[in-house]
Amino acid sequence: MSETMGDSEIKQLEKIGKTAVADLKKEENPKITIPLRGLSNVYFEKKEKVIRLGDKTSQRTLLNVAHTKKFMQTTMIAALCKRLLKAQKHASLREAYYQLKHSVGDGHENTFEGQEESDPLIEDMETLLHVLREKLHLSADRRGYLYGNIQLEDRGDIIDCSKLGSGGFGIPSTIEEIKFKKVTANYVLVIETAAMFERLIEEKFAQKNKAILVATQGQAARGCRRLINRLANEAKLPIYVFTDGDPYGYYIYSVIKQGSINLAYLSDQFGTPACRFLGMQMSDIKKYKLEKVTEKLKDLDRKRLEEELKYQWFQTPEWQKELNMMLTMGVRIEQQALAHKSLEFVAEEYLPEKIEKEDVLP
Amino acid sequence: MSETMGDSEIKQLEKIGKTAVADLKKEENPKITIPLRGLSNVYFEKKEKVIRLGDKTSQRTLLNVAHTKKFMQTTMIAALCKRLLKAQKHASLREAYYQLKHSVGDGHENTFEGQEESDPLIEDMETLLHVLREKLHLSADRRGYLYGNIQLEDRGDIIDCSKLGSGGFGIPSTIEEIKFKKVTANYVLVIETAAMFERLIEEKFAQKNKAILVATQGQAARGCRRLINRLANEAKLPIYVFTDGDPYGYYIYSVIKQGSINLAYLSDQFGTPACRFLGMQMSDIKKYKLEKVTEKLKDLDRKRLEEELKYQWFQTPEWQKELNMMLTMGVRIEQQALAHKSLEFVAEEYLPEKIEKEDVLP
Repeated sequence: MSETMGDSEIKQLEKIGKTAVADLKKEENPKITIPLRGLSNVYFEKKEKVIRLGDKTSQRTLLNVAHTKKFMQTTMIAALCKRLLKAQKHASLREAYYQLKHSVGDGHENTFEGQEESDPLIEDMETLLHVLREKLHLSADRRGYLYGNIQLEDRGDIIDCSKLGSGGFGIPSTIEEIKFKKVTANYVLVIETAAMFERLIEEKFAQKNKAILVATQGQAARGCRRLINRLANEAKLPIYVFTDGDPYGYYIYSVIKQGSINLAYLSDQFGTPACRFLGMQMSDIKKYKLEKVTEKLKDLDRKRLEEELKYQWFQTPEWQKELNMMLTMGVRIEQQALAHKSLEFVAEEYLPEKIEKEDVLP
Repeated sequence: MSETMGDSEIKQLEKIGKTAVADLKKEENPKITIPLRGLSNVYFEKKEKVIRLGDKTSQRTLLNVAHTKKFMQTTMIAALCKRLLKAQKHASLREAYYQLKHSVGDGHENTFEGQEESDPLIEDMETLLHVLREKLHLSADRRGYLYGNIQLEDRGDIIDCSKLGSGGFGIPSTIEEIKFKKVTANYVLVIETAAMFERLIEEKFAQKNKAILVATQGQAARGCRRLINRLANEAKLPIYVFTDGDPYGYYIYSVIKQGSINLAYLSDQFGTPACRFLGMQMSDIKKYKLEKVTEKLKDLDRKRLEEELKYQWFQTPEWQKELNMMLTMGVRIEQQALAHKSLEFVAEEYLPEKIEKEDVLP
């Protein structure tokens, strides 16, 4: 437990309360100014290639009947975060809701009616302080696994992630306190499916290629995205993303790369603009003779593709070509379809070849 | 890699082919007799308290046009399993499908049109040989985490599961080859949500109580259920199951305890009849003054409850009382609602008290 960890967050949280009290003493109406989230205040910054929040804000004042309850709830959440930081404890969003529900005086009215009231205010807090909720000790749901050439230090334990059998390390909801103790990897391979992750562990891919494997199990959870971000920025590792060759796989990639509209206010900490898309690529189908193991696009796939063609972050010649090729060919291809060649093929030929030739999309 | 591992399975698989060849040589119609699965051939064995398969069977013959393709597919799957066992490789169900699709000669017809054709035949193989598909080296999807007082040996690695930071061990899809190297736990606590699992890691619950924590993340995956089964049968540990107090939590418990209708043919290896239900119990609400953090039952909850009241495995006085109490009170309660008392409450009071007093349901 470091002495400084959380100190700056505590000061920021206290400032919310102190400012309100000072306003009241001056007989002024206490207010909190919160950046607006959502599409109307989001833009894609082309230079840094991340989704960012604009400068629109909204104000929440105490002496406005429409705001009073929310004002109180906001300060309650700030107070809870301060308590968590002081006690060096973490709480899930659900626990936070249960901690805060019905805890003011003897009143019969609930302070919070449901988690749908507390969650957005926690996002407000992140936006307001420009701090990850994980750094305020509030955790999201966890999903995903890590395996390979890295030693982690976590809560006093030293974990050699290349010696975790066939299981790997479960990526926790909050990875802020994990330290990269020793990195012997040349790159990180982010994998969509847990089955492919298991395939590559069985093939000893991490050991043979000095790699770190990260399984997202579908859309990457916050802890997983934050870990990828830190592996790129702190450990300075190249990041390759390996998903199914379908519109959903592209979407998973785009969220890892430039963040999401929902979390635009924290793209610096969640997005990894330097990551690259390894596959599955449409050109793989011909190159590796996989014509017989493609699947026909469904209507939903086509609809998503049409949308992705318009996204700002897919406005590169490479991605326009890729997306149009999928539309024209009318098929998608899964990463596990490579098993049609042989089980080893993905580990012994496909991936090493792609990486050596830098056969990737931006 | 042991010399004997998989040998008996290989012999069983070879027998399928040898029998068919012998039949052909005798100019007889080769046939495979497979136990029927599904509700019509399933019963609840009260003594051992598991769901079992009856003795109805169906026959698949080569020289019946309606059976020929399926007969071929069945032998193809047997051949694939043999290859996997010989090579000491594992394949996911999806990989198995891709390995087998379109692989006979130069014909234009697919051998398998989709995974919906290969999956049921793999279940046939499990039923026929009375062997887990994991022992035939075919893996299901993984989900779940392990943490606590146990050392595992897996693929040559020794893993101390009490020294895995805040993450824990990712439970792989196949746990057949994992050895329990050293067990210093008094019991296993199976937990429905990953958030509660993280709470208990943070509270050092495993260390303080000499426990093993298993997070199922909702319905327990096959690997997770098999691990619980082995912890009960091989490591001889008591198993406590800790879910939300709602019909879905009860369902998760019942599947861990007596297996499922789908997998009735393998209840011995997937069910854990000795496990007990720790909570959340309806009586907890009054006992721990949790009235303000319950949630109203929804229509779907009531419907499920009515169904569960009729299930044979809930025909005990304790469960009938519990289910009826929920119907009468009209509420459900989540495990994370205990955070309303304090974050530590679950680890320092609720769980130790329940376990000490054996305040559990059968």
